[in-house]
Amino acid sequence: MQGAVLYGPRDVRFEERQDPAIVEPTDAIIRLSATCICGSDLWPYRGANKITGPTPMGHEYCGIVEEIGRSVTSIRKGQFVIGSFFASDNTCPHCRAGYQTSCQHRTLVGGAQAPLLRVPLADGTLVATREVPSADLVPSLLALSDVMGTGWFAADAANVKPGETVAVVGDGAVGLLAVLAAKQIGAERIIAMSRHESRQTLAREFGATDIVNERGEEGVARIKDLTKGVGADSVLECVGTKESMAQAIGITRPGGSVGYVGVPHGVELDAASLFYRHVRLFGGAAPVRRYLPDLIDRVLKGQMNPGKVFDLTLPLHQVAEGYRAMDERRAIKTLLTL
Amino acid sequence: MQGAVLYGPRDVRFEERQDPAIVEPTDAIIRLSATCICGSDLWPYRGANKITGPTPMGHEYCGIVEEIGRSVTSIRKGQFVIGSFFASDNTCPHCRAGYQTSCQHRTLVGGAQAPLLRVPLADGTLVATREVPSADLVPSLLALSDVMGTGWFAADAANVKPGETVAVVGDGAVGLLAVLAAKQIGAERIIAMSRHESRQTLAREFGATDIVNERGEEGVARIKDLTKGVGADSVLECVGTKESMAQAIGITRPGGSVGYVGVPHGVELDAASLFYRHVRLFGGAAPVRRYLPDLIDRVLKGQMNPGKVFDLTLPLHQVAEGYRAMDERRAIKTLLTL
Repeated sequence: MQGAVLYGPRDVRFEERQDPAIVEPTDAIIRLSATCICGSDLWPYRGANKITGPTPMGHEYCGIVEEIGRSVTSIRKGQFVIGSFFASDNTCPHCRAGYQTSCQHRTLVGGAQAPLLRVPLADGTLVATREVPSADLVPSLLALSDVMGTGWFAADAANVKPGETVAVVGDGAVGLLAVLAAKQIGAERIIAMSRHESRQTLAREFGATDIVNERGEEGVARIKDLTKGVGADSVLECVGTKESMAQAIGITRPGGSVGYVGVPHGVELDAASLFYRHVRLFGGAAPVRRYLPDLIDRVLKGQMNPGKVFDLTLPLHQVAEGYRAMDERRAIKTLLTL
Repeated sequence: MQGAVLYGPRDVRFEERQDPAIVEPTDAIIRLSATCICGSDLWPYRGANKITGPTPMGHEYCGIVEEIGRSVTSIRKGQFVIGSFFASDNTCPHCRAGYQTSCQHRTLVGGAQAPLLRVPLADGTLVATREVPSADLVPSLLALSDVMGTGWFAADAANVKPGETVAVVGDGAVGLLAVLAAKQIGAERIIAMSRHESRQTLAREFGATDIVNERGEEGVARIKDLTKGVGADSVLECVGTKESMAQAIGITRPGGSVGYVGVPHGVELDAASLFYRHVRLFGGAAPVRRYLPDLIDRVLKGQMNPGKVFDLTLPLHQVAEGYRAMDERRAIKTLLTL
């Protein structure tokens, strides 16, 4: 088969790779219905995360089960399945507590920008739909594998509740889907911080009621204004920088919560400042597996359409152009068809 | 009247002070039934927090209303009342959300190590009992003014739930009462970290099921052992140092919570490490006012006796000895009688 391999900064190649095969008896092989490029793929693409050699890329996937290992019992050949970017056994204490991305046996899933993918711990990791969904639902179902699940976790970690005021820091794909998550959970007011028109439009479509262009201290002041000096009940931090975290903490009301899902890069927090502000802080790698059954249900019932976040669709063999478009912020998120 | 005044490091004097008088129409004057010394009073006593001049000390109080300002409507002369160390209006958005220590009009209450005390925002701050309680209940009711309310907030901030496993870092008065709070809320297993025998005994009396002597990495390893490698569901951090916070984060299970009430002194947190551990973090100055009605009820019904935390009782005029005993860790907490 042919798939995407990263060789170094801005050097993604579409090239021949060995077909995946069952390695452990708990594995499954999936034939992907579609795949995509994640904002986090840009870290190694830009050279910010080092790679040690040619690296098969991609960790978002859904598709048809092609083969299963002999220990797999709950997943069958021919089923349409979705899984998380972390494989998990779904039986250890951390999984049972709902934190499958902290599974005692977790393994990163990699190499999903290809027609076929090996998924470890298939029983724990994969969720099958009752029937094979129609093609038009595939982008939204694919989004559940990471980006929508991550936006959902931002909302969950920030304790979003019906009727409350939510602010979202970051207008990347995760931030936009965090808006959608807040809307689905029933937030009354959703303030999206964005200065890009196309992203503002999508934020509104996903449920944002207010857009704030300002950043930094001006952004904090603007949100304080919008909330009569109180701040937001829940703030969804979807970037991961020092600045975005400071902004998130600054706009949270006393007793409110920041849910952060942007992988923190060099973010140090002053405990005293959190103490005096009464800000609750929670985040991490989204336990997508926990949310999958509910989120699949919402997509299949037509209650939400997270696939709208894909504003560029390319055939897989043009994957390099997909990376370029996202790197240059010409695209929010690239869908790759097979 | 005569009360405690701090002049400089380890220089507390019991000396003549002006009787407090109504300043604002929302004030009340209380004749204290008893008062006490707080662990946080030791910060300025030891010179760790600077003072700018002679400072009347004390912020924990309960007693009989002696006089009220003309705007006070819900508190009457002759009532027995308890209030928090922060006066609050109890009507602003932060108060209504339950964070009275972040009240938009909050004021520190000071000078409570004296027979009389002025309490601002009396209607918002004070909670009256139906009858004047018997003298034997006064120590436990006094404890609600700060130390017990703070232990309770540690448990609340750490999401302690019935049946769960709780660990408490710190065996000062707050830590010991955090054990009691966890027990009252219904935690099944309560692990107290303490290496002092008298404090271990009190911790067990308050509900600790396990005592861990080890600190630092050894302490973390010991708690991991005790919890089959999982960690505690809720960790109550009652110290405020870099070491105690690292310990608290290290013993929390993925998806678990740290509630921290020790005022952080020089604590920087690495967001990435919290991210990868899935640790929820929340703390601050305890919103004691929110808990007072419930906690008063528990004391009056004999369900808990937080006053046991006072292991030294002195007449107010010996207040200097009370500070010395706590400074030298001869006493956990000093009750001052009037």
